[in-house]
Amino acid sequence: MGMSERMPAGPARGYTASKEQLLKRLRRVEGQVRGVQRMVDEDRYCIEVLTQISAAQAALDKVALGLLDDHARHCMVQAEGEERMAKSDELMGAVGRLLRHG
Amino acid sequence: MGMSERMPAGPARGYTASKEQLLKRLRRVEGQVRGVQRMVDEDRYCIEVLTQISAAQAALDKVALGLLDDHARHCMVQAEGEERMAKSDELMGAVGRLLRHG
Amino acid sequence: MGMSERMPAGPARGYTASKEQLLKRLRRVEGQVRGVQRMVDEDRYCIEVLTQISAAQAALDKVALGLLDDHARHCMVQAEGEERMAKSDELMGAVGRLLRHG
Amino acid sequence: MGMSERMPAGPARGYTASKEQLLKRLRRVEGQVRGVQRMVDEDRYCIEVLTQISAAQAALDKVALGLLDDHARHCMVQAEGEERMAKSDELMGAVGRLLRHG
Repeated sequence: MGMSERMPAGPARGYTASKEQLLKRLRRVEGQVRGVQRMVDEDRYCIEVLTQISAAQAALDKVALGLLDDHARHCMVQAEGEERMAKSDELMGAVGRLLRHG
Repeated sequence: MGMSERMPAGPARGYTASKEQLLKRLRRVEGQVRGVQRMVDEDRYCIEVLTQISAAQAALDKVALGLLDDHARHCMVQAEGEERMAKSDELMGAVGRLLRHG
Repeated sequence: MGMSERMPAGPARGYTASKEQLLKRLRRVEGQVRGVQRMVDEDRYCIEVLTQISAAQAALDKVALGLLDDHARHCMVQAEGEERMAKSDELMGAVGRLLRHG
Repeated sequence: MGMSERMPAGPARGYTASKEQLLKRLRRVEGQVRGVQRMVDEDRYCIEVLTQISAAQAALDKVALGLLDDHARHCMVQAEGEERMAKSDELMGAVGRLLRHG
């Protein structure tokens, strides 16, 4: 895939610490999605394909929870007053989108 | 990607008709997941990354609904008696896994 | 609750067989929702309240899966041709709404 | 319903401010669940019942988001160091349970 190894010059985001873990999980999700393509291409039984899709969804949920955790631990807590309320609103908006899938 | 174009020798699965559409959608999901990797790699703001993850989840939901539809229209209806009950159980198992993500 | 015991005069719906089971589960969900009200009223810790809400959601999912199963086993399979396609569309619409919650 | 109006003696929870709004929503969810019971009892078409269940789920999601918001705005932000990490873990546990429904 050729993941670039460059370090960002800007301020470290909340998830910088666990970045490698997030990227590793995302590469696995990419592999799962390619696996689903292969299954469809090989006319595999639809129920099996659906099981694989559920696994990819579960893996994306884990990535999302990791990002939410970073947001809650870092971005939110550093904010104060009005800004903190805005950060919480953003967090809830993101959770709402995850519950309904966009 | 190197999608193989071979035709399966076995009986055509229910989703064969809409196969190209399913594969097109899945390639788009793969692109979305790679987009999420890029965003994480570039330390983009976590809420933006989460929005992109929700979009990928919604796209996977659509693929899953397409496969369920094929299962309901073709696999299930062709079955009779005991086998039909088994097919419905499989369908519900798949829906249950989608609701809970694995 | 005063559940009426009358028998419907019309044609039996698919879920008639398991009707008592569905009603029993729904009464339990009603009890869970009232339990959540009590917890909020008593200012219980929000995480505990959320756990109880998740339990009610899981119970509603089970009722929904039971109804989908009845639809797939009875309503869908009795239909033919165009009508069967329409029933499958209805089923998928319902699954889509369950995935996104309305 | 006989909602007690007593004030808790202990420290006010995060959601005390919006308590009446949460209770009002929960009473509506209770009404929706009773509506679903009535529909099942009257042998209404399963797809209509499922639509009503999705509406109840969406309403429960809103209550859950309200509680999460209170947790994020109040409980989490007041905590520091180790305790803050613990609060974030609790929050993510609750979000994870909502995503998977228990």
